[in-house]
Amino acid sequence: MNLDSMLPTLGEWLKGTGPEGDVVVSTRIRLARNLADHPFTNRSSNHEKAEVEAKLRDCVTQLDLPHKLRYVEMGDLSALDRQFLVERQLISRELANVLEGPRGAAFDDRESVSLMVNEEDQLRLQVMRSGLALDAAWDEIDFIDDMIESKLTYAFHEQFGYLTACPTNVGTGMRASVMLHLPALGMTKQIEKAFKALQKINLVVRGLYGEGSRASGDFYQISNQVTLGKSEAAALTDIREVIHEIMRYERMARTALVRESRQGMQDRVARAIGTLQSATMMTSEETMDLLSSVRLGLHLKLMEEVPLETVNELFLHSQPAHLQKLMGEILDGEARNAARARYLRSRLRDSAGQN
Amino acid sequence: MNLDSMLPTLGEWLKGTGPEGDVVVSTRIRLARNLADHPFTNRSSNHEKAEVEAKLRDCVTQLDLPHKLRYVEMGDLSALDRQFLVERQLISRELANVLEGPRGAAFDDRESVSLMVNEEDQLRLQVMRSGLALDAAWDEIDFIDDMIESKLTYAFHEQFGYLTACPTNVGTGMRASVMLHLPALGMTKQIEKAFKALQKINLVVRGLYGEGSRASGDFYQISNQVTLGKSEAAALTDIREVIHEIMRYERMARTALVRESRQGMQDRVARAIGTLQSATMMTSEETMDLLSSVRLGLHLKLMEEVPLETVNELFLHSQPAHLQKLMGEILDGEARNAARARYLRSRLRDSAGQN
Repeated sequence: MNLDSMLPTLGEWLKGTGPEGDVVVSTRIRLARNLADHPFTNRSSNHEKAEVEAKLRDCVTQLDLPHKLRYVEMGDLSALDRQFLVERQLISRELANVLEGPRGAAFDDRESVSLMVNEEDQLRLQVMRSGLALDAAWDEIDFIDDMIESKLTYAFHEQFGYLTACPTNVGTGMRASVMLHLPALGMTKQIEKAFKALQKINLVVRGLYGEGSRASGDFYQISNQVTLGKSEAAALTDIREVIHEIMRYERMARTALVRESRQGMQDRVARAIGTLQSATMMTSEETMDLLSSVRLGLHLKLMEEVPLETVNELFLHSQPAHLQKLMGEILDGEARNAARARYLRSRLRDSAGQN
Repeated sequence: MNLDSMLPTLGEWLKGTGPEGDVVVSTRIRLARNLADHPFTNRSSNHEKAEVEAKLRDCVTQLDLPHKLRYVEMGDLSALDRQFLVERQLISRELANVLEGPRGAAFDDRESVSLMVNEEDQLRLQVMRSGLALDAAWDEIDFIDDMIESKLTYAFHEQFGYLTACPTNVGTGMRASVMLHLPALGMTKQIEKAFKALQKINLVVRGLYGEGSRASGDFYQISNQVTLGKSEAAALTDIREVIHEIMRYERMARTALVRESRQGMQDRVARAIGTLQSATMMTSEETMDLLSSVRLGLHLKLMEEVPLETVNELFLHSQPAHLQKLMGEILDGEARNAARARYLRSRLRDSAGQN
């Protein structure tokens, strides 16, 4: 099987239509769950993993959801397709990189809901939304979680809450992450200052692709760290307050930039488009940085040649697996940089008026 | 009077049609001369300067040359027009910046021959040629010099030769300068090494606009330093040998660059055009650097959308006085950077196919 049919569409979370979309790209909540009476994945034999996988697959595929889930076994997918799902944020890098053992993922056609089976935990549920939508995401994931829990018995401890393979997730098993686009704070070197407050209240900042990744394109994920001794609602309140604060900083910085150097900002945006339209070699890192400038330019109304949806699509399509699927062949680093540049040139020259 | 009628044309030396034109932009020879029985300019009263000016103007305008000289009095020109002549290399910055006293310049319609009256010396003759053309330039300037000398008496000393206001010019009064475009030596950090040999043999390297100017756009002028105790022919031989050596280095560096990173070079050139076509603010410094990449790209056949003549024209037109004449108004730095960017965008989008 392959996943090419998903290529032309964008997940709902990437459409840029959600609340506070000028700063907040997307909201994600995930829950870590395990089944009672089964050892954790990292302590299971392949036989035991297969049992868990069968149980969860049956349950998941039979859920009566408004948007049906499609289940895929990781073993049936090429490395390229697994990477493709990582880029769409439907599965984790970890799940993609495990090379054997029964494991799978399920997702709906909006790419809002996704589930992973036999990752670090036996079941990881995830809901993604466009913009800042913690409540909507929570309501949806809570609903699905309850539905599953009505059919299976989770590993749960009266005092600790949900039990997980890694102790850092014990309790609610919930991690809420909000992805922010903070180019103005980056440009004005205020990003460190803005994030300083986060650690005190146990929130974590990471780059686009999770732990250890650089914040390419000025994208940052902010997540709660504490799952024990704090309710889901309290954790969501903490993160919501901080996000509002950071949005305020970012918007102030944007306003100041336009007020103090409108021409300079316009130039920056125009050059970013010019480079995307003309380079013949382009890394995904640089693509991200240039598209970040274009995205900012759109939100500041410094340009309008390129629609936001195209920018969002290019963020996704310029990534390695998407690019290779679009080109219809496996490409090494150099060839990929050339293909990426070709793709960006053609897409942006088509969509932008030459004025 | 104003010089707007010269705007649409390029001096012959800028056409890029001369010998070794891939590396050598132009050749220039100038002679410093003074009249016998008149004090040097820096020791003259305004009355004495006026006498000299009248004498030289009469002589110069009556020369029977294949291309007639047009004489302009500096006092009749605006600061903008004087700067315009500097940018066309027809007069020196020094002549343009003197604010009073009788002084003038003459040049032919090819902008090959030019003369300055009452600059540092009473008479400066200059011949410019496209490409490496030391002999042709020498023959022409020598012919004009003889013609003038047949009508006027130069300050000349049997032992020292031609006498000049500054002792560094005494003797032949000749300075031969070759303007080189050395982007590959710049890129591969070999420029210092290549120039090391020059000082030993008394040659001088300067940036595009003479002493003290940075080598913007990888353009370098190499000139002889010695005018005393060495014949014109010997000085020209010295410089010719060195130029051939440096051309060889530059070409080797270009070949190596294309061999080792053709894609990288192509990308560099494409990005340069892209930036010129899209920026909304652009300094003349950056313009020079970007056009330098485009010029290299043309000579390496890495692109062909933009004709060499357009590139050469843009080198000239993007300079402050030319730009302001093209725009028809006096512009300050910021407004000039915006106007320059607008001009470059329109010129390059017209001439380059969007492919």
